[in-house]
Amino acid sequence: MSVFHGKNISVSIFGQSHSEAIGVVIEGLPSGITINEDSIKTFMKRRAASSSAFSTQRKEGDEPVFISGVLNGKTTGAAVCVVIYNKDQRSKDYSALFYTPRPGHADYTARIKYCGFEDTRGGGAFSGRMTAPLCIAGAIAKDYLEEKGVTIGSHILSVSDISEERFDSVNVSAEELKKVTSKPFGTVSDEKGRAMLEKIAEARNDCDSLGGVIECAAVGVPAGYGGEIFDGIESTLAKLVFSVPAVKGFEIGAGFDSTKLCGSENNDPFYYDENGVVKTFTNNHGGILGGMTSGMPIIFRAAIKPTPSIAKTQKTVNLETKENTEIEIKGRHDSCIVPRALPVMESCLALAVLDELIK
Amino acid sequence: MSVFHGKNISVSIFGQSHSEAIGVVIEGLPSGITINEDSIKTFMKRRAASSSAFSTQRKEGDEPVFISGVLNGKTTGAAVCVVIYNKDQRSKDYSALFYTPRPGHADYTARIKYCGFEDTRGGGAFSGRMTAPLCIAGAIAKDYLEEKGVTIGSHILSVSDISEERFDSVNVSAEELKKVTSKPFGTVSDEKGRAMLEKIAEARNDCDSLGGVIECAAVGVPAGYGGEIFDGIESTLAKLVFSVPAVKGFEIGAGFDSTKLCGSENNDPFYYDENGVVKTFTNNHGGILGGMTSGMPIIFRAAIKPTPSIAKTQKTVNLETKENTEIEIKGRHDSCIVPRALPVMESCLALAVLDELIK
Amino acid sequence: MSVFHGKNISVSIFGQSHSEAIGVVIEGLPSGITINEDSIKTFMKRRAASSSAFSTQRKEGDEPVFISGVLNGKTTGAAVCVVIYNKDQRSKDYSALFYTPRPGHADYTARIKYCGFEDTRGGGAFSGRMTAPLCIAGAIAKDYLEEKGVTIGSHILSVSDISEERFDSVNVSAEELKKVTSKPFGTVSDEKGRAMLEKIAEARNDCDSLGGVIECAAVGVPAGYGGEIFDGIESTLAKLVFSVPAVKGFEIGAGFDSTKLCGSENNDPFYYDENGVVKTFTNNHGGILGGMTSGMPIIFRAAIKPTPSIAKTQKTVNLETKENTEIEIKGRHDSCIVPRALPVMESCLALAVLDELIK
Amino acid sequence: MSVFHGKNISVSIFGQSHSEAIGVVIEGLPSGITINEDSIKTFMKRRAASSSAFSTQRKEGDEPVFISGVLNGKTTGAAVCVVIYNKDQRSKDYSALFYTPRPGHADYTARIKYCGFEDTRGGGAFSGRMTAPLCIAGAIAKDYLEEKGVTIGSHILSVSDISEERFDSVNVSAEELKKVTSKPFGTVSDEKGRAMLEKIAEARNDCDSLGGVIECAAVGVPAGYGGEIFDGIESTLAKLVFSVPAVKGFEIGAGFDSTKLCGSENNDPFYYDENGVVKTFTNNHGGILGGMTSGMPIIFRAAIKPTPSIAKTQKTVNLETKENTEIEIKGRHDSCIVPRALPVMESCLALAVLDELIK
Repeated sequence: MSVFHGKNISVSIFGQSHSEAIGVVIEGLPSGITINEDSIKTFMKRRAASSSAFSTQRKEGDEPVFISGVLNGKTTGAAVCVVIYNKDQRSKDYSALFYTPRPGHADYTARIKYCGFEDTRGGGAFSGRMTAPLCIAGAIAKDYLEEKGVTIGSHILSVSDISEERFDSVNVSAEELKKVTSKPFGTVSDEKGRAMLEKIAEARNDCDSLGGVIECAAVGVPAGYGGEIFDGIESTLAKLVFSVPAVKGFEIGAGFDSTKLCGSENNDPFYYDENGVVKTFTNNHGGILGGMTSGMPIIFRAAIKPTPSIAKTQKTVNLETKENTEIEIKGRHDSCIVPRALPVMESCLALAVLDELIK
Repeated sequence: MSVFHGKNISVSIFGQSHSEAIGVVIEGLPSGITINEDSIKTFMKRRAASSSAFSTQRKEGDEPVFISGVLNGKTTGAAVCVVIYNKDQRSKDYSALFYTPRPGHADYTARIKYCGFEDTRGGGAFSGRMTAPLCIAGAIAKDYLEEKGVTIGSHILSVSDISEERFDSVNVSAEELKKVTSKPFGTVSDEKGRAMLEKIAEARNDCDSLGGVIECAAVGVPAGYGGEIFDGIESTLAKLVFSVPAVKGFEIGAGFDSTKLCGSENNDPFYYDENGVVKTFTNNHGGILGGMTSGMPIIFRAAIKPTPSIAKTQKTVNLETKENTEIEIKGRHDSCIVPRALPVMESCLALAVLDELIK
Repeated sequence: MSVFHGKNISVSIFGQSHSEAIGVVIEGLPSGITINEDSIKTFMKRRAASSSAFSTQRKEGDEPVFISGVLNGKTTGAAVCVVIYNKDQRSKDYSALFYTPRPGHADYTARIKYCGFEDTRGGGAFSGRMTAPLCIAGAIAKDYLEEKGVTIGSHILSVSDISEERFDSVNVSAEELKKVTSKPFGTVSDEKGRAMLEKIAEARNDCDSLGGVIECAAVGVPAGYGGEIFDGIESTLAKLVFSVPAVKGFEIGAGFDSTKLCGSENNDPFYYDENGVVKTFTNNHGGILGGMTSGMPIIFRAAIKPTPSIAKTQKTVNLETKENTEIEIKGRHDSCIVPRALPVMESCLALAVLDELIK
Repeated sequence: MSVFHGKNISVSIFGQSHSEAIGVVIEGLPSGITINEDSIKTFMKRRAASSSAFSTQRKEGDEPVFISGVLNGKTTGAAVCVVIYNKDQRSKDYSALFYTPRPGHADYTARIKYCGFEDTRGGGAFSGRMTAPLCIAGAIAKDYLEEKGVTIGSHILSVSDISEERFDSVNVSAEELKKVTSKPFGTVSDEKGRAMLEKIAEARNDCDSLGGVIECAAVGVPAGYGGEIFDGIESTLAKLVFSVPAVKGFEIGAGFDSTKLCGSENNDPFYYDENGVVKTFTNNHGGILGGMTSGMPIIFRAAIKPTPSIAKTQKTVNLETKENTEIEIKGRHDSCIVPRALPVMESCLALAVLDELIK
């Protein structure tokens, strides 16, 4: 079941790349939450394809249509359903894939699980396109949190071997987060951004693709949210992040680097700041201690693998003839999905935090 | 709520470090599963403290007592409850911590969440000791899976900056996994193991602690288990792994490294092996594609931060006087919990796989 | 959250009486289930308004549109979303109700819960119209079960003080169930049906309304499904039945009557029938013993209160002026919803049984 | 799985009649709730066997032992686990039942579901004894609600054909509820109580048993709790009530009687009382309208079937020899469990209300 059952909200995503529509049902939102359709569309545009170097040529309108749960721009308290009608479907592109699973895709594993009944057109229910409904939920959550003083943002930390600096995990500000999320290419450093774009263009010329790392942060989350063991906010967040196709790694705060520090280096000592607020000098814990928020910025990084759809010829099998064969994937594909995954990662964080804060 | 609600099983963990007992209720296990108490105890011993260089001096008997759900060595189909009575509690050690939260621990965040009603003795519900009931559930799951042809094992990939080689993600065998899990110190290479132990001893002498990375694998999992989006097996696994205190990072297959590969390198091409089984030449996907198992070994790595309890003096706050202060943590603590976390990581993987396979 | 989380399926209903659409997302259906749109439409028609004596004059097309999860007439295994676009909305009818809650409706309680943000048009998310998406899910479940040898049907046991005979709880057959569900007015006895229709017409002339009791049965359900305590199939069924507006009572087997029997009368003795199948001589248990199916017909009855929307003047309050006042409800309303509730009750039973059988 | 997953709490019950212990894990309780062990024990005594005419001769100590989640008489916020050690087990009484299922019990259905691995001793996980842990959770909930101004109580409305008057559904008071729950035999009318006791004694002399109806009420529940469709508080309540063995019917407010009223009689008109509170003149809705509380008393009735264990010889089957046979049930059994079921019904109501109010 592709339902996320949070503590307070439930998010159900439906649709396939080439079905009538894709969409989301969000249950548990309080009544009276402002739904700013402009803000949602702006957010969705960051995920949608554009004409730039890194993105697919398929034009995804991604126009969210509110079906239920909203009246006069406010949530009614009933289930919110939003759909995006699929318009630009070229199903013929995909017919051959039924027997020759694409490496790095869900074609083969879905065939086994769903016994050939699965919808393979355009990746079906496994398409990256399914992150669009997730972003609708994320946009609603993010807007709500912003009203409550919580700002969420992200940047492209790296593409292939080109990386820029991490956020300052102690001092990262709402302004910084807003600034980087409003940029056409989501790096803090324009220079690094240009280098990444060049690298992506190169990969495209090579009929190949690239991956990268996204760093995402939330500032303004109060201390004391989350819980112990299975109830930890990082458990929820990790579940959400790994529900996004192409994510292969996830770390909080200092993450894997913390394994190379001594305890005395990695522990973040507490102090009272000038306003009497408890803070930590460092933020290796990434804003979460023992599954609960500490009041420090929440910081996580996610590894996005290179787009599996590449134009290069690849080895695969023919499931009908039971023979080894080759495949050439045609059609429209991103040579790097990292830039478009930024709002998706923000959506995961927004939903994890919203789920705690609306209690 | 510290309940894991899987697709088919539900695991509820209860207890505090110094309560009457700690324990676990596992619901949804089929009837007739063999409960091998010896095997469970052997598994638990790997998690329990020993007298070696890296572990706490507290003697945790960790004797599992079956309360319900098992009759004549088989599950009855009703809820399985197992407890471990807490015997060796020195509660006085912890009384001062109520006002001076330990850096890197849940003391402060729990105070905010639970308003001072939380049990701080020995870390309460946030203690690493709470992984013992998780291991009971894991041991049952692991034994069951072994009967079904699935073997799970793990090794210490690194402690601080000393690391050994990763498992061969394509060819890792059940035998290899069994061999390394039966070793007193869980490295494949004895030489690397000795180096790690020395490093840990050093840290202990410095009143400090170390972290490390654990690599965990499952072989023999059939293809086609899991599901899309929130239903992916890596989502479930990530949730479980991050429910373990001290985990700060998690990656599947090539993980963060995959972000430095091209798509043509990272994609794992399919082929038919001599037995007509679909396999992949490489295993950068770590046995999971699109949220579903591929039949290749499942491989993940988890980053374990250095033990937060260290003997060195640390800065902290006094929550009563609202002043900055210092803390010296006394008592019995591991200078590196990585070795004891091996069965815990295996438990997470066993539970995630069991939850899929018993359907 | 209006999500039903079963053991294997999840059903999420969304929409309001006057929103863009109403609909349902069903997760967890296996791939390859036949979706017979004609059969679904036939089933939906039983719930929809017709021109007969008992029903509303509002013409509810109730045309189900499949959005996702179905390909070539079979489920793909992904979430199935089906919507009904709302066409015939006369929102102006309802504007006054915002301040004068209708007796017997959710107007007042929703006002308190949702603070005035709720959608009051046509009863909003509390409208009986929301049973249409439930029936879509029910129709799919019922068709699937029929293929597996399970037949579900129901009849109008009573309207007001006119009642017909109960099903023979031991011998009720699939044929009988199919016959009564195909009748234009769902009584076994045509004579009793006519008497009920007359009584309903009378109530309508009096600007009043009537309730009644529905009896619903499933034959062919194998023994051994369900579970103990919270896991019992009657717990699931009761939850589903009470999620339907207007239901005020529910009983299984002999139900309330069993309280007047001695144990020796109420207990259903077991015997082997000529085919070696274990059966019971009587069926006071209604096919469920200890939360699990016994193989005997499952029988339940549900009490449906008289339609709360009546044309008679009624006392109520004005929530703005804080004064007592009166209300006259205009518009189109059923004087008895019992006939239209038949497929709704069947849907509840079908979903409860499906949820067990698809494991 | 015998887990109740509420909106805010989760209740997991474990144990068998003759296992080491039975118990309950309650997750989601806020920290700081007072745990009054005396009050809990008093409540438990109402459920436990006494030496009176109606009850079993088995002496169930039912001593609750707190394992976790409580410190200094207050909840810590972590999972609360409470067990009752089973002491007085005479397992030999039950050995023969493995092959000859008792009519009216779960023996046969459990055999099919659990394939012979189930624990049949004393009814195993299906025993009425499993309501003891439910009552522990209920007692905690009831005490908490009492502090919040919500009082819950119940009375024996009928035993067999002897019944007393229903609560006044509009005016029933906290005092009345407290009074009747403190009586040794839970009827409002002592005369009716005596008649019921005589009838029960008669049944016992006949080697037979009786059932009855319990009416349960909550006063002081504020308006606006619950939700629509699957989220209705009566859905939750119905699920809980039917999780109790022996319950065969459930109705809210006027229940089945409402089907004989006209809409104009059944609708409860609103008015402002002298304090400006919205009330209804009548309470046929039983305190719940559209799934949400109205502020009026919540009233429900549950049908409890006659105890299935009777000393009379009964027909049954031998599952080993596959022949029809007879059974005589020996041992200690209540001839009427209705009196002992009163606190169980109150527990269901308390948990359903608590689950809403602690949000």
